[in-house]
Parts: sequence; structure tokens; C-alpha cells
Amino acid sequence: MEADKATKKFEKEMKSGTASLVLLSILAKAEEPLYGYLIARRLETETGGEPLIKQGALYPVLRSLEGSSLLSSEVEASTSGPPRRYYRITRQGRETLVAWKGIWDSIRNFVEVSLEGVGDE
Amino acid sequence: MEADKATKKFEKEMKSGTASLVLLSILAKAEEPLYGYLIARRLETETGGEPLIKQGALYPVLRSLEGSSLLSSEVEASTSGPPRRYYRITRQGRETLVAWKGIWDSIRNFVEVSLEGVGDE
Repeated sequence: MEADKATKKFEKEMKSGTASLVLLSILAKAEEPLYGYLIARRLETETGGEPLIKQGALYPVLRSLEGSSLLSSEVEASTSGPPRRYYRITRQGRETLVAWKGIWDSIRNFVEVSLEGVGDE
Repeated sequence: MEADKATKKFEKEMKSGTASLVLLSILAKAEEPLYGYLIARRLETETGGEPLIKQGALYPVLRSLEGSSLLSSEVEASTSGPPRRYYRITRQGRETLVAWKGIWDSIRNFVEVSLEGVGDE
């Protein structure tokens, strides 16, 4: 495998792990259930620009989080298009988010310490 | 999938992505080639305690980085045991590390912004 492929793999792994964490956070802070497009909008607003998760990539992650009982969803008719699936975080989702935040914090610190001094020569 | 399994998956994905970044950083800062045990020791020293990558988990990552030409290695006889495989970072590895650090920085910022306010209620 060449370096370019290794970089694509690295980026994919990093995004895959963090996408679930980010979506769970967005839904933990939402005051009402959100459907895909609204979640995509919040990702853009929060990060002030191009989000790291494209809208199309949201849906498999949302379904997977629902499959793990961290989110629940309901389909509602829309007056302006096809029915929409609204997602909300479950109680278990909130508990899991606390655990994931802990895991994230220790991995982030570990990486930051390792990166200290890199590229300073 | 239950929440526990989702948490194991999350942790595994996060560690898998970051392990390559951390090992590349360690070898970028090393003043001489290092073999597995020495790398494991540096991980412990740097992070001041239990490292997030166990020694046994290092080897597949090192081999994969070498397969991508980011590291090179050489086997040397040891007076005190079996031969040791010494790893050093390649020029391509240094260039790749700069790219990965950029990817890490933007993903870290994205996650940090998303986590802001979570658990504050």
C-alpha cells in the first residue's frame, strides 16, 4: 500500500470513529427531534463551514446509532416532500455519550502528547 | 447491537486511527532506529502511565506502516535474546506525518466544537 492509500485509510478511520460521537453530541444538544437535513445544517453552522461529514454519509451512521438503541426515530409526513425520519437521543444514548466523551478525551490527550515537538526541527 | 458493543466499536475505531499517527510521531522524534520494546517504553514515558496501545498491538501497526513505505526496518542480532527488528521513519513517512497532523487537527477541532455544551445541563 502506498502512502496516499495509507492517508486515505487514516482519514477514513478517524472520520468513522468521530462521526458517531459528533452526531450523538448534536442530538444530545437538540431541543427537538431532527431529521437528516437539519442535522447536516447544524453540522455546518457549528463548525462554520465545510463539515467533515457529508449529508449522504449521515444516514448510515444514524441508522447504526439507532440499531444500538442510542437514538430512536419516527417518520412524519411532510407537506413539502417525502416523509421525514426524525431522530432523538435516548436515555441510553446520553449515558453512552458521557462514556464516549471520556474515551475521546484520553485518546485526544494521548495523541496531543505524542505530537508535541513533531515538525519542530 | 447494544450500547456496550457500540462503545467497544467506537473505542476500537478511535484507537485504530490514532495508533498509526502516534507511532509515526514517536519514530519521527527518535534520534535512532527503535525496536518494538523501546517504542512501547517511549509510549509509556510520554503519556506518563498506561499507554493506549499495548505492546502486542504495536507490531501489526508497524508492519502496516512499513508496507506503506512510511517506515523502513532492519533486523539486527541481539546479544541478549532473539534478533530485533529496528524501525526508522522514511522521508515519505515524515511528509505523510505532516499531512496526518493536518487531518488530525481539523477532526479534533470539529469534535471539540460539537462536544461544547454537552453534559452541561
